[in-house]
Amino acid sequence: MAVQKARRQVQALLGADQASEIMFNSGGTESVNSAIISALESAPLRREMIVSAIEHSAVRTLADWLAKNKGIRVHTIPVDRNGRIDVVAYKEALSERVAVVSMMWANNETGTILPVVELAEMAKEVGATFHTDAVQAVGKIPIDLKSTQIDMLSLSGHKLHAPKGIGALYLRKGLRFRPQIKGGHQERGRRAGTENVPGIVALGRAAELAGERMADDAAYLTALRGRLEAGLREIPNASIVAFENDRLPNTTSVVFDYIESESILLLLDKEGIAASSGSACSSGSFEPSHVLQAMNVPETALRGAVRFSLSRQNTEAEIDRVLEVLPGIVAKLREISPFGEGADAASQENAYA
Amino acid sequence: MAVQKARRQVQALLGADQASEIMFNSGGTESVNSAIISALESAPLRREMIVSAIEHSAVRTLADWLAKNKGIRVHTIPVDRNGRIDVVAYKEALSERVAVVSMMWANNETGTILPVVELAEMAKEVGATFHTDAVQAVGKIPIDLKSTQIDMLSLSGHKLHAPKGIGALYLRKGLRFRPQIKGGHQERGRRAGTENVPGIVALGRAAELAGERMADDAAYLTALRGRLEAGLREIPNASIVAFENDRLPNTTSVVFDYIESESILLLLDKEGIAASSGSACSSGSFEPSHVLQAMNVPETALRGAVRFSLSRQNTEAEIDRVLEVLPGIVAKLREISPFGEGADAASQENAYA
Repeated sequence: MAVQKARRQVQALLGADQASEIMFNSGGTESVNSAIISALESAPLRREMIVSAIEHSAVRTLADWLAKNKGIRVHTIPVDRNGRIDVVAYKEALSERVAVVSMMWANNETGTILPVVELAEMAKEVGATFHTDAVQAVGKIPIDLKSTQIDMLSLSGHKLHAPKGIGALYLRKGLRFRPQIKGGHQERGRRAGTENVPGIVALGRAAELAGERMADDAAYLTALRGRLEAGLREIPNASIVAFENDRLPNTTSVVFDYIESESILLLLDKEGIAASSGSACSSGSFEPSHVLQAMNVPETALRGAVRFSLSRQNTEAEIDRVLEVLPGIVAKLREISPFGEGADAASQENAYA
Repeated sequence: MAVQKARRQVQALLGADQASEIMFNSGGTESVNSAIISALESAPLRREMIVSAIEHSAVRTLADWLAKNKGIRVHTIPVDRNGRIDVVAYKEALSERVAVVSMMWANNETGTILPVVELAEMAKEVGATFHTDAVQAVGKIPIDLKSTQIDMLSLSGHKLHAPKGIGALYLRKGLRFRPQIKGGHQERGRRAGTENVPGIVALGRAAELAGERMADDAAYLTALRGRLEAGLREIPNASIVAFENDRLPNTTSVVFDYIESESILLLLDKEGIAASSGSACSSGSFEPSHVLQAMNVPETALRGAVRFSLSRQNTEAEIDRVLEVLPGIVAKLREISPFGEGADAASQENAYA
């Protein structure tokens, strides 16, 4: 059956022990919501949860809502300038009062990878359920869930080139699960509603392709990104975010002091180069990125973040083209910046990571 | 923009006042869940809800869960032998303690149509939110929400020939809505998560086509079904369910005394005729249909229900073929039925509707 085949394909990509540990749903956000709420409902006497300071809005908004409406105490664990989680603070927050820990596997804005395997082991020592939002990580780095103590993992189909509107939740065998959408008995009674069969089939095939290509892609993208970042680092007042941390091979986030990223994107776009600022899920808001704020990126650079996402379809020639036009764009915008004059001096002090 | 166009197409099919009243989601079950829970959360001092006895499992399972886990008092309003709602009981249950009424527009097993426009008016008199599960009705009968007092309406894409995994919720302008899936600001902050754009576009187009074809289809299907039912009624011990009630033009449910529907379906299938028993969403369970039970279908016929769903693609010749083979199938199964002997006498007494 097509759905079962897709389940095995996703199982293989995640290194899950059993296909039945994979439950399909409508996407990463639903997955994250259902995982966290189920974990809380399954341990009603535990009234605390732990998240990192750099989670996606799905986790952040839900955590805020739980704190405000359900009286859940939420511990938000800080990260350092390289996006590394503060393990001491994490250990302090862990206790038998904690129902669930939710930490992303890789950050969507900076590509930084969190040590979720170790964080899960620590969570299990106090009996907390460990969930990871792995929307950015799945298909990009090797994952072998059966050798970990991770209880739940959320993924999104379109990040693997399946269509939008399909996702999956890994649920370790034996874990209690409280369905959030009630109704029929689909997905072993864990997610009611007619299955999105075309989406599921596409996600399965996308998972299979991602698995086949991962090693080659990672090698290629790491080299390509190295070329890009070497060039970026020569641009005055530019810093690669979390340069010293483990990161997904496809992501580079760079901040430019005293420049607004929107202007950079506009001028890059004129040259046919697509980049983005911050997170697509926060776009439309004028708040600076909570991820960069959590990493103590200086005020002067918070609005100048540009993210380059590389794929197997990008070429060295394209990288060279970016590096050809970007310094001129930055110089031009610095000239017209209201903060331009004092910038050179300031940026020397602000050099980080 | 493609999503906005789809929103207007769904708006048109529903006769909604504004396109912004349409919110896309992953399907009928999610839609029903989010509507009912939002209504309860929006009126926390009201601790009761009202449903009909013939709701889909999405509403039933959720109502049971709310009763058991949230202390919500659920009034289940009975129907008569024709599937007509007991309006006296409904009026008695209505009070200012009721947060939400959820009544389906048309039943999925029998096609019976509930007078939701009138039921909504009564609900509004006590300030209750009125939701209708219109998964079966949308696209089959004319709907003009702006002239009603219905607050919320759920629909499912694949019932309109859009793909599985897409649905929509109508939310009357001004109605409070508490999102069930938290995260980004998609769908005006009412449903977080990356939009299923291909599903949305398909649903919009499907809605448009359904609107264009509805009148012609209804006339054609009503004639075709009349032909089918005239023939079915000549089969001994067969009764059309809810024959005297308003029903969707495409649905016929027929019960045969002392026969198991699975055997009928098997033999019909051998003849290349596809029918179904009860509801697809309850399949896999051996419980007799709660809808037929609510309608007081006699014990002897509860397991002998066969549903024929007609579409514009069916022909008179196909109907005649069903009527050619079905009497023989029924006669043959009656012969081997352990209850066969006393059946003729019993079925005379059991004649209903």
